[in-house]
Amino acid sequence: MTSVDLNADMGESFGPWVMGQDAALLEVVTSANVACGFHAGDWDVMAETMTTARARGVGIGAHPGFADLQGFGRRRMHLPERSLRHMVQYQLGAALGMARAVGAEVRHLKLHGALSNMTSEDEGLAEACYGAALEVVPEIIVMVLAATAQQRVVERLGCLWAGEIFADRAYNADATLVDRSLPGAVLHDPAEAAPRIVKMVQAGAILPETGDPIPAGIDTICLHGDGATALPMARAVRGALEAAGIEVKAFEGRRGAP
Amino acid sequence: MTSVDLNADMGESFGPWVMGQDAALLEVVTSANVACGFHAGDWDVMAETMTTARARGVGIGAHPGFADLQGFGRRRMHLPERSLRHMVQYQLGAALGMARAVGAEVRHLKLHGALSNMTSEDEGLAEACYGAALEVVPEIIVMVLAATAQQRVVERLGCLWAGEIFADRAYNADATLVDRSLPGAVLHDPAEAAPRIVKMVQAGAILPETGDPIPAGIDTICLHGDGATALPMARAVRGALEAAGIEVKAFEGRRGAP
Amino acid sequence: MTSVDLNADMGESFGPWVMGQDAALLEVVTSANVACGFHAGDWDVMAETMTTARARGVGIGAHPGFADLQGFGRRRMHLPERSLRHMVQYQLGAALGMARAVGAEVRHLKLHGALSNMTSEDEGLAEACYGAALEVVPEIIVMVLAATAQQRVVERLGCLWAGEIFADRAYNADATLVDRSLPGAVLHDPAEAAPRIVKMVQAGAILPETGDPIPAGIDTICLHGDGATALPMARAVRGALEAAGIEVKAFEGRRGAP
Amino acid sequence: MTSVDLNADMGESFGPWVMGQDAALLEVVTSANVACGFHAGDWDVMAETMTTARARGVGIGAHPGFADLQGFGRRRMHLPERSLRHMVQYQLGAALGMARAVGAEVRHLKLHGALSNMTSEDEGLAEACYGAALEVVPEIIVMVLAATAQQRVVERLGCLWAGEIFADRAYNADATLVDRSLPGAVLHDPAEAAPRIVKMVQAGAILPETGDPIPAGIDTICLHGDGATALPMARAVRGALEAAGIEVKAFEGRRGAP
Repeated sequence: MTSVDLNADMGESFGPWVMGQDAALLEVVTSANVACGFHAGDWDVMAETMTTARARGVGIGAHPGFADLQGFGRRRMHLPERSLRHMVQYQLGAALGMARAVGAEVRHLKLHGALSNMTSEDEGLAEACYGAALEVVPEIIVMVLAATAQQRVVERLGCLWAGEIFADRAYNADATLVDRSLPGAVLHDPAEAAPRIVKMVQAGAILPETGDPIPAGIDTICLHGDGATALPMARAVRGALEAAGIEVKAFEGRRGAP
Repeated sequence: MTSVDLNADMGESFGPWVMGQDAALLEVVTSANVACGFHAGDWDVMAETMTTARARGVGIGAHPGFADLQGFGRRRMHLPERSLRHMVQYQLGAALGMARAVGAEVRHLKLHGALSNMTSEDEGLAEACYGAALEVVPEIIVMVLAATAQQRVVERLGCLWAGEIFADRAYNADATLVDRSLPGAVLHDPAEAAPRIVKMVQAGAILPETGDPIPAGIDTICLHGDGATALPMARAVRGALEAAGIEVKAFEGRRGAP
Repeated sequence: MTSVDLNADMGESFGPWVMGQDAALLEVVTSANVACGFHAGDWDVMAETMTTARARGVGIGAHPGFADLQGFGRRRMHLPERSLRHMVQYQLGAALGMARAVGAEVRHLKLHGALSNMTSEDEGLAEACYGAALEVVPEIIVMVLAATAQQRVVERLGCLWAGEIFADRAYNADATLVDRSLPGAVLHDPAEAAPRIVKMVQAGAILPETGDPIPAGIDTICLHGDGATALPMARAVRGALEAAGIEVKAFEGRRGAP
Repeated sequence: MTSVDLNADMGESFGPWVMGQDAALLEVVTSANVACGFHAGDWDVMAETMTTARARGVGIGAHPGFADLQGFGRRRMHLPERSLRHMVQYQLGAALGMARAVGAEVRHLKLHGALSNMTSEDEGLAEACYGAALEVVPEIIVMVLAATAQQRVVERLGCLWAGEIFADRAYNADATLVDRSLPGAVLHDPAEAAPRIVKMVQAGAILPETGDPIPAGIDTICLHGDGATALPMARAVRGALEAAGIEVKAFEGRRGAP
């Protein structure tokens, strides 16, 4: 039986500021990417998010980003490679500490925002970040943007990994995302997005708007945690997958080429 | 054969700013308290400090403090207990991550600055911090200021601990430190401080300026890492201990009352 | 004709995190206390808040707090007096710069959170903060909690000041606020709060729950900007004041004893 | 009589960490670029630096940089233009506040580190930063790297400006700096650097290692504040200028093309 994971970014509140609908979304997803305090989240938010995730049986991941709270980790910063490596290790370690404190484990790693964008384009940066994380937790499952430099690196590193596609983003023929400024780039209608995702999972391929299917290891679907449509979208995607006989559960990770 | 540990705060540089003489001091001490990025240190400094400590066979400890870089963690902050707990867990976790990345372990925990002062006076705060750390690393050795609330708490918790006295501070009859504003509060002369420490270790007691010896579990001597006299003092203390037949090595931790 | 000012804390969003209903509240209040980036707010938020306030003819104030974003400036920190002074001056200066950039002025100063609580109890701290601010803007109007140490200090300093009471908080017989944990401490019903405020303004006195009226210089009413009842409460208070023939407009500041 | 200004970055200490030899250098320079707390400096350091500068009659400038303390503002960050503008305004405002508090003025603006590098290459970024600063202080003198995009922008803006060259850096034929990785890029010998600077000031031109003189408005010479050779270099440059009959004094600013 085919199975797939559903993931969402979580724990993005900070101090008095609330973001997202974590508690409700943790009823739908099977993996939670928990912000580590640099671009969002703080130690109290991490503890609360991980406690709830553990209670729901949702897999916990570290979600490191740039040390740029005001910019939410979405602004590109240019760090020396060794500093980038240590930055990932520090955040992953912090997540490990918080997870242990609530009796949980950190199963996976997903890079955030500009750090994710940059590593999806640059294999050297991706290898720096992933290699650094694997020094801390050799058995961690690295979540990668399918068919990007991120995926090429984890195949080469031989580590456990999981390929990710977006529930609500249109793809170009080369597997990159359609630019947000173009019409149709973001799908807002669950009735449209959900069956499309089912088709991709069944096909084992990204289905771009134009062009041929792109075979890909699709292990997890990224759902968004914020905005009015986040929850309906998440529930529709899960419902459609289950209706199609696809099991929704946390990924186990794969090694090498898909 | 009697043995004792020598410890010093380390990794207190930050970004472009250098503090302390870590490399030289790591030739003398047997335990290093590594700042965790909140009151001092950053991920690059942590990595470098831990790498050198590991190469020298020096025990690595996490040294968490308040999130107050400008104040160097020396200004009292009043956090809710749960936030205090998470703050310690986050920093300990970060230290774990950095240590793993360099192939080392975090053996001990020592609180920094105002956080140390507050927990030496208030058992509730000490228990919050230590209990939180033990949730993350149950086998960690908690370094406590001998004969303070810190020590009473670790005795009660039943965890591994090590009692600490200062190489260069005079004690009152109740085992508190003589206020820095009073004459003789800080010893600057290695020739005076070193034999005094030997006597305390041999006696298994704090020897106050006036009053009776105070029996104490003396497992480690705190040396300072900064200032012109730091290295001569450290070397004199180590030399005097060894000359007196006291082995200088990392502590193993004790449990319960001394 | 009697007049009174209505003020509220503003510009408390940060980066991607939204707080409060500034745009709507700026239609009701006559003075805005703008966070200066330490406990809340950032330079983008400040610019936007001040631009809107200026367009609405609302008086702009600097609202400095402790450098504790996670704690929203609500946690007490103990800084040396000179550092406290510089901290206020830095934030006030930053507010001046942002205000000039949008063609506005900083008319008043109001301390935030724990800094406000501490200075309402300790004249020395209040004098440090206010004296520091007056070195930067001698003609600034200092907003003080009526009948506290804050007021005693501005009377003594001889600077311009405005006395403030809360729209939704019950008072004790000694003019302190009823502790939030007690029943009736916070008024949630606009129909109850609004006429009560009218009475206080007309009486020129704080009316405690029990005990005699406390004569006070009541120049401004503090409204809250966050929560479901914030806007209805603000509108009800303004409406009741105007219905009673009390003009609602920005304060001009007074000097000396009321 | 020809005159020229000598400037250096100042106030780059932070909390307990000391950087530079400000007090000694303030005996030599005529303009001080004071860090504003984002990449270095804090409110206490700013107050102390400005107090000393004022006492020495040294002109005070705001020296804003990216909000990246660990990276000392030397790492490129990509901010939206409006955020970049507000970031400069906030820091300039803070400097204004601190300066007023010590009875001084902010005479000039100089961008720091990566922000300076980026604006020396990109007129759009330079115009955003300088235009933003001029909204806060229309009469401020903008210090620009001579013969770069920075200079082209101030000429166009019509504001007051001062052109700067480096005392210890070799120039390429196109007025860019010789890359630090190349031999001879940095001059360490005061006996070599000082007469070279005299020649440039007398020629009113940058003298590259190879190629023709590049006519430039040379109003100020940048000296470094840190490192063993900083003070001897600063004194040698000042001495050589004075010996050549060139007056060393703070710039007044020029407008338009040189």
